[in-house]
Amino acid sequence: MALRVAVAGASGYAGGEVLRLLLGHPEVEIGALTGGSNAGTRLGALQPHLIPLADRVLEPTTPEVLADHDVVFLALPHGQSAAVAEALGQNVLVVDCGADFRLRAAADWEQFYGSAHAGTWPYGLPELPGHRTALKGVNRIAVPGCYPTAVSLALFPAYAAQLAEPEAVIVAASGTSGAGKAAKTHLLGSEVMGSVSAYGVGGVHRHTPEMSQNLTPLAGEPVTVSFTPTLVPMPRGILATCSAKARPGVTGESLRAAYAEAFAGEPFVHLLPEGHWPQTSSVYGSNAALVQVALDETAGRIVAISAIDNLVKGTAGGAVQSMNIALGLPEELGLPVNGVAP
Amino acid sequence: MALRVAVAGASGYAGGEVLRLLLGHPEVEIGALTGGSNAGTRLGALQPHLIPLADRVLEPTTPEVLADHDVVFLALPHGQSAAVAEALGQNVLVVDCGADFRLRAAADWEQFYGSAHAGTWPYGLPELPGHRTALKGVNRIAVPGCYPTAVSLALFPAYAAQLAEPEAVIVAASGTSGAGKAAKTHLLGSEVMGSVSAYGVGGVHRHTPEMSQNLTPLAGEPVTVSFTPTLVPMPRGILATCSAKARPGVTGESLRAAYAEAFAGEPFVHLLPEGHWPQTSSVYGSNAALVQVALDETAGRIVAISAIDNLVKGTAGGAVQSMNIALGLPEELGLPVNGVAP
Amino acid sequence: MALRVAVAGASGYAGGEVLRLLLGHPEVEIGALTGGSNAGTRLGALQPHLIPLADRVLEPTTPEVLADHDVVFLALPHGQSAAVAEALGQNVLVVDCGADFRLRAAADWEQFYGSAHAGTWPYGLPELPGHRTALKGVNRIAVPGCYPTAVSLALFPAYAAQLAEPEAVIVAASGTSGAGKAAKTHLLGSEVMGSVSAYGVGGVHRHTPEMSQNLTPLAGEPVTVSFTPTLVPMPRGILATCSAKARPGVTGESLRAAYAEAFAGEPFVHLLPEGHWPQTSSVYGSNAALVQVALDETAGRIVAISAIDNLVKGTAGGAVQSMNIALGLPEELGLPVNGVAP
Amino acid sequence: MALRVAVAGASGYAGGEVLRLLLGHPEVEIGALTGGSNAGTRLGALQPHLIPLADRVLEPTTPEVLADHDVVFLALPHGQSAAVAEALGQNVLVVDCGADFRLRAAADWEQFYGSAHAGTWPYGLPELPGHRTALKGVNRIAVPGCYPTAVSLALFPAYAAQLAEPEAVIVAASGTSGAGKAAKTHLLGSEVMGSVSAYGVGGVHRHTPEMSQNLTPLAGEPVTVSFTPTLVPMPRGILATCSAKARPGVTGESLRAAYAEAFAGEPFVHLLPEGHWPQTSSVYGSNAALVQVALDETAGRIVAISAIDNLVKGTAGGAVQSMNIALGLPEELGLPVNGVAP
Repeated sequence: MALRVAVAGASGYAGGEVLRLLLGHPEVEIGALTGGSNAGTRLGALQPHLIPLADRVLEPTTPEVLADHDVVFLALPHGQSAAVAEALGQNVLVVDCGADFRLRAAADWEQFYGSAHAGTWPYGLPELPGHRTALKGVNRIAVPGCYPTAVSLALFPAYAAQLAEPEAVIVAASGTSGAGKAAKTHLLGSEVMGSVSAYGVGGVHRHTPEMSQNLTPLAGEPVTVSFTPTLVPMPRGILATCSAKARPGVTGESLRAAYAEAFAGEPFVHLLPEGHWPQTSSVYGSNAALVQVALDETAGRIVAISAIDNLVKGTAGGAVQSMNIALGLPEELGLPVNGVAP
Repeated sequence: MALRVAVAGASGYAGGEVLRLLLGHPEVEIGALTGGSNAGTRLGALQPHLIPLADRVLEPTTPEVLADHDVVFLALPHGQSAAVAEALGQNVLVVDCGADFRLRAAADWEQFYGSAHAGTWPYGLPELPGHRTALKGVNRIAVPGCYPTAVSLALFPAYAAQLAEPEAVIVAASGTSGAGKAAKTHLLGSEVMGSVSAYGVGGVHRHTPEMSQNLTPLAGEPVTVSFTPTLVPMPRGILATCSAKARPGVTGESLRAAYAEAFAGEPFVHLLPEGHWPQTSSVYGSNAALVQVALDETAGRIVAISAIDNLVKGTAGGAVQSMNIALGLPEELGLPVNGVAP
Repeated sequence: MALRVAVAGASGYAGGEVLRLLLGHPEVEIGALTGGSNAGTRLGALQPHLIPLADRVLEPTTPEVLADHDVVFLALPHGQSAAVAEALGQNVLVVDCGADFRLRAAADWEQFYGSAHAGTWPYGLPELPGHRTALKGVNRIAVPGCYPTAVSLALFPAYAAQLAEPEAVIVAASGTSGAGKAAKTHLLGSEVMGSVSAYGVGGVHRHTPEMSQNLTPLAGEPVTVSFTPTLVPMPRGILATCSAKARPGVTGESLRAAYAEAFAGEPFVHLLPEGHWPQTSSVYGSNAALVQVALDETAGRIVAISAIDNLVKGTAGGAVQSMNIALGLPEELGLPVNGVAP
Repeated sequence: MALRVAVAGASGYAGGEVLRLLLGHPEVEIGALTGGSNAGTRLGALQPHLIPLADRVLEPTTPEVLADHDVVFLALPHGQSAAVAEALGQNVLVVDCGADFRLRAAADWEQFYGSAHAGTWPYGLPELPGHRTALKGVNRIAVPGCYPTAVSLALFPAYAAQLAEPEAVIVAASGTSGAGKAAKTHLLGSEVMGSVSAYGVGGVHRHTPEMSQNLTPLAGEPVTVSFTPTLVPMPRGILATCSAKARPGVTGESLRAAYAEAFAGEPFVHLLPEGHWPQTSSVYGSNAALVQVALDETAGRIVAISAIDNLVKGTAGGAVQSMNIALGLPEELGLPVNGVAP
């Protein structure tokens, strides 16, 4: 019998992508779709690419509408998930695509989001050591941020194998959908096409503490992260260039072996053959992550690069993958692995 | 038991897209993959987005390699399909993504392609009146050109209902993958980004006679086509703007009714609600076609606009859809209908 | 002594482009810059590419601020120009980049804009027969719409030489800056990149009557225009594909001769050599227009294609060119002719 | 009397951009234009945006053709400049846009270029301390690489003021024109649009030693550089994200003061106001560089970001600026400072 699944926030980019994936998931029946200011609107007017759902009408995001589902995906603005989740019973699997339940340290939350900490839910990045097991059977999942997903996949093997010094320097390029669907002048096509820009520079981007949180337990000491996000002219995709000083004795071979071992058997994370470097088009629309790593012997640094689709592996795909694990379904169910390229 | 399917020309854009779709087709097992100058190369180096096939190595395009398959897709340069097809038995379904067997009039072929006419195969546009039935059980399929697919879907209802005068004016915008993967200076990213250009202007584009061939039988008199293709800065997608003078007495209502009837029950072609116009992103990576039509009462013209993905409905998706029909499989099997947007 | 020039609406795309050109104009001193809701803001925060003006602060758009200038450019939302212009004396040259004073027929204005007709000013398209002379010494100029500029340049030679039937079919592709700088969801980079869309289809786009108005006097009979605009993923540029049935006896040679004669001596409009077709990148940032024409003998149609930069020749460049003529300055002063390519 | 200037390699992107700038330079008369395999071709077919030069025909790159000019710009493939320069007299100013004469250490050249070192010419980055003076009156100029230009401008103030530790980590995003005009599959529009990729990772990019060479003398100790270039979907522009550990005692104020002082009076390099970060569209087509810097106190790193147009300040603009200095002309002559945006 199919799972009945609701999506709260179905008019945005994250909610739309959750729906695109659910439409291809064989165990799912799509239930209520809700919106904020868009309640009452045909989905076809908001998400014209979701053709089978074009005649669905968005309902308001209320506990009544969301009740009576097996799974509820939340794709809401930051700060709104806790109230909605509270009203749903413990027999409902709630998957939060927002930030509200990602950070463990209340101080981090308060510093970067400026409000009271809502709590911490099981973290939906199954590839991180220990996390796949921890997701089995849970009824609450915090989907990782898109940048932390890309960065953690690129760097965790180096830290898990004690190959890297605990100061990571990360520059990531993101497509514009990562900035959301709210109409803002600086996100207009006229502004972003033909242009790359930096933002959130100098340690102030909200995803920074989440990266440290993921890497520190593996390193066994606090990992500081210098993170610079940049916006590039494409709708989707993240390319994360991550580096850290190599610990003494690290060789190209030991580095490569650590990555190969870390990703062995992973259905969605792939270490590229030597000499090949990731491009985001290879994972366009796909839940895959491509990773490559090199040792720069002159600079003494490990350089690891990952490519993901920010809306799939970075949001909706990670969410569905974690849902599959939580519910005991095959982990890959309904998740595309091939990119739509060129 | 799965169908064993080979793809000749697996290194190009059409071949790659056939493979992307076949990887999601539940009745297919991917057999031989061949290339010309790329024989001997890992597919991962040529099509890095086809992750499950990354370690496959291209074989040369020979009858021996292609024999022993149930279906062979040909994605070869124009003029090469006939020789390959001849060497394959009549028990093999051969689906030609090239132009060689599309045109019925040898004179058209000779004028536009400058070589001897190879013949005509059943035409893989099932939505065209009469064509779905004609495809059942065939062992040879000529996949339509990408532009003729977009244009025929936009205009056939008007001609089939005798609403339009037999002189069509068409301007179509295509993404760059329609021009293929051969390295040419004018197709470099530096040249095409930020730029729209016209080419093949004045009745010389090779797809022009194929459009007339599709529309003329429905109109009951020769339909002349003025066709201007333009290249726009995106990897995929065609938006075809098609117009013709309205016959006397045509109203907006009669026009809309004709289109609604023509597309009723079609799994992949959708008439948009009034006031909505197609955008190619809605069908990115999908086999769907979106169509809208209006009557310009001042100019006295019917204006019909269609959006397709040139590599899916315009090539590989049309090919797989026709294969499904020919083999008696469900027509929609393995074919995505949702676009990858934004 | 330098002309003192004000720009009302300096925070938008048209106003910004007027300023970019004026910064390179040797006879101009930039005076007051005004904005609506942006009054009080540093220009550097709104137009970061206008580096020498970064520390200028926008003033409110009032008669007091705009008084005491030799020339005032208006780059305001439709309907606001008349009130501002009225408050400026007849010794001030007012150049309106908006639509308010373009249309001669009040009925056209009322039908397409839904408000009372403000009047008609001399029309700033000097290449149109008779218009250059008519601009000399005027103190009010209505800058043409971007689409009518591209279309009129492509078609006027055919109509002036009586070569074309009076029913034109036009499909134009425009970069997104033509839609302005107001933040709207459908203009987000995430929405427009990788996508082409149609809008204003079926004779309802506001620029349609302006095209008829320009061509009809040359044809000597009413020219109806079927106009379809499309939005393509680039910041600037228009490619207009224009066609009309050829009158009996028209040959490729007579057609080409008419265009060569029409553009002879024009500083900014260039007929390409045979076999070359325009691309918008060639005129990126430039006041040039590139035109090509062909006779499609099978379809019996003249096909003329023009490329302009919608913000330069289509708005700000046409405005400065007309200002130069009105003031008796060299027509080309301060206007770039080379495109910024690739 | 105008300077007579020749351009060798006029068919490529660097040569085309040199010509675009020279067409706006009031002291220059454009002389011979040469090409390799394109000799004999109309420039209009190769550089359709250089409208006033459309009818010029490329000549072969020989000493006879290039003789009798006051200035010769070389925009040739690496390794070809030395032979051409040798054949030109010492009374000719030769400006080499290629790499041949940039590196001082023969070992660096041999390691990264794999051939014999041709020598070292005065280095055309006038903003680097001491370099402006050193360019006066020279007759040979090595134009810096595009990445080293962006990186050196972003980091030299920190090193000159002894604020940064000598290990720099740099990730730069470049538009595709930086990869040149040779037709290569991975540079096709279909491949680069919608995609970001990394290349030359791990210390192997040829511009790496040039960065160290520029920064080391200012730091007073060897500066190692970890450099990762990425290719982004836009025709031009570089955004360089550069960081280094801050030396003890560095504050945000001392950092900002050092940058303000370093760029004071510079005509082309601008420190943005606090809180603003550079975007490449602001310098599209312009010789300006925009820089911003911040101190990440948590990570203990200085983060400096610069935006340039790789073809202007990064190549042709830097070349013309250096020519102006060498010849005693005003440094800004003929060089646009405003970007073409949006």
